[in-house]
Amino acid sequence: MEYFAGIDLGGTKIYAIVINDKGKILSRAKIKTGAKKDVDTILKKIVDCYKEALAGAKIEEKDIQSVGMAVPSAMDVKQGILLHAPNLGWKKVPIAKLFKEKINKPVFIGNDVNIGTYGEYCFGAGKKAKNLYGLFIGTGIGGGYVVDGKIIRGLNFTAGEIGHMVIDMGGSRCNCGNKGCLETVAAKIGMIDYMIKKVGKDKKKTILSKIAPDWQKTIGSSALKEAYEKKDKIVVKAIKRSAGAIGIACANLINTIGIESIVIGGGVMEEMGDVFMPIIRKKMDSYAIGGGAANVKLLKSALGDDAVALGAAWYARLPENKELLF
Amino acid sequence: MEYFAGIDLGGTKIYAIVINDKGKILSRAKIKTGAKKDVDTILKKIVDCYKEALAGAKIEEKDIQSVGMAVPSAMDVKQGILLHAPNLGWKKVPIAKLFKEKINKPVFIGNDVNIGTYGEYCFGAGKKAKNLYGLFIGTGIGGGYVVDGKIIRGLNFTAGEIGHMVIDMGGSRCNCGNKGCLETVAAKIGMIDYMIKKVGKDKKKTILSKIAPDWQKTIGSSALKEAYEKKDKIVVKAIKRSAGAIGIACANLINTIGIESIVIGGGVMEEMGDVFMPIIRKKMDSYAIGGGAANVKLLKSALGDDAVALGAAWYARLPENKELLF
Repeated sequence: MEYFAGIDLGGTKIYAIVINDKGKILSRAKIKTGAKKDVDTILKKIVDCYKEALAGAKIEEKDIQSVGMAVPSAMDVKQGILLHAPNLGWKKVPIAKLFKEKINKPVFIGNDVNIGTYGEYCFGAGKKAKNLYGLFIGTGIGGGYVVDGKIIRGLNFTAGEIGHMVIDMGGSRCNCGNKGCLETVAAKIGMIDYMIKKVGKDKKKTILSKIAPDWQKTIGSSALKEAYEKKDKIVVKAIKRSAGAIGIACANLINTIGIESIVIGGGVMEEMGDVFMPIIRKKMDSYAIGGGAANVKLLKSALGDDAVALGAAWYARLPENKELLF
Repeated sequence: MEYFAGIDLGGTKIYAIVINDKGKILSRAKIKTGAKKDVDTILKKIVDCYKEALAGAKIEEKDIQSVGMAVPSAMDVKQGILLHAPNLGWKKVPIAKLFKEKINKPVFIGNDVNIGTYGEYCFGAGKKAKNLYGLFIGTGIGGGYVVDGKIIRGLNFTAGEIGHMVIDMGGSRCNCGNKGCLETVAAKIGMIDYMIKKVGKDKKKTILSKIAPDWQKTIGSSALKEAYEKKDKIVVKAIKRSAGAIGIACANLINTIGIESIVIGGGVMEEMGDVFMPIIRKKMDSYAIGGGAANVKLLKSALGDDAVALGAAWYARLPENKELLF
């Protein structure tokens, strides 16, 4: 039997799995990324996590055929170079080469949300889709684009960066330097920005000041959910605005490229999918030209934490991706 | 030798060509669409125009293998049904069947801007492109999406409707009923809307009142050009805003799908390409994430009036499109 490993490297945690050649997950392991984020320290932790997953599956290293890893960064997959991971403070790291030196297996390294979308395409909500766009909503918004089983990346590996689709020209300043990007409206940073303005302008109060005193800086999805359920006016408005903007972005995909399936995931969706999905659907239907959203699948991600690691392992496993292995 | 015909049906004119099996244009014919726009009258004119093109090329009807026609409407290409052509006042017309009855040849019928992009892909500015998005700027904005030689249409034939990509959420009302679509900013209707507001709000004057007294309703691209060259402040602003928005839309394509080539055409570009292109390029470069516009080709359409008719003829010619022929 052949086995494969997948690793999801995040700013907060490292997550590793082992799968068999059918894509069945045999074990999972998790390690905190930690505060010390130099490349060498993190690579050692990744190897620890990988070995823990192997032990959990009772598989020996020699039986692992290949390893896929996803990173929170734009990736030059052809050269195996991580371009820029703000959460890790890394720029231009030859990660494929460095990682291969550590584990001595064929490795593939890709962008986490591209790979997460691919995971959902192969095993999750997007199974049997002809084409699939993924949107993952958290602090920011990332995405991925899969057509006929292939991850579309584009010349400079920008495909999937739907968080930086401008939908509000001249709107709020984005971390990328431009204005009006989708994430300035629809991600947590956009919601916070909106709520701060509301509180200031209308001198209104929000229950968040009690449940999450730091909300103007950072906010957990569960606190948002609690405030929403308690019908906090500002939170309700921020969430409807966010979900509406996601719906418009989905309609933009229908109108420009005729996308047929969209999967929505990420921390915000894990907590609040039931609130977000109907609003997204309604806006998408109304903004798609000439009833163009009919029969377009709008899906909630199904694999949770596994999506990225599973996608990475499976991507590295398939012979057709061999040329991107190091 | 085998010959093929292509027809471009517009609200103002009908344009027909005959090509040989290398795609060389042997003749062109043109007829005014006229005010009487019932299906039967127009079909007769199309046939007249087609026969005029045959005569011009000295080709007999029996030597024509197939005919491609492009229409100013969303097309259900599988069923051969024209869905909605506002310029003609047509809805749900089984155009393929009706046209085939008239000329008794294998016919293909598609959307004009999809086909125009395809024409540029096969013979014009987009030759050798891996993938190509077309934007055609006139009264409104239409487009097309070609990947690996195939026109991408999507489930409900919406692909290419980039004129209805929302880039200015909550902005001006669009003819489609939504707000903030690209064409409300960047097409001629968007420029007019902006200039009317400017004139009203700032009580400013524009030279357009002399060169094109009806400018608040409709305006020719040549009048816009003249006013721009005479440095009319309002017109200069409107044009920069329009070109900037097109640049942002191009960056949106880079960020979401990693598009590699974009061709810009249409009446406004024919007159003012030299003004528009540098502004579009600059905005596109600045809005594409992480330098993502590097080496992305931004092209001015090269085929002018021929793009659509040539694309239609060639599409109907190719064996791989046989299943869409009636």
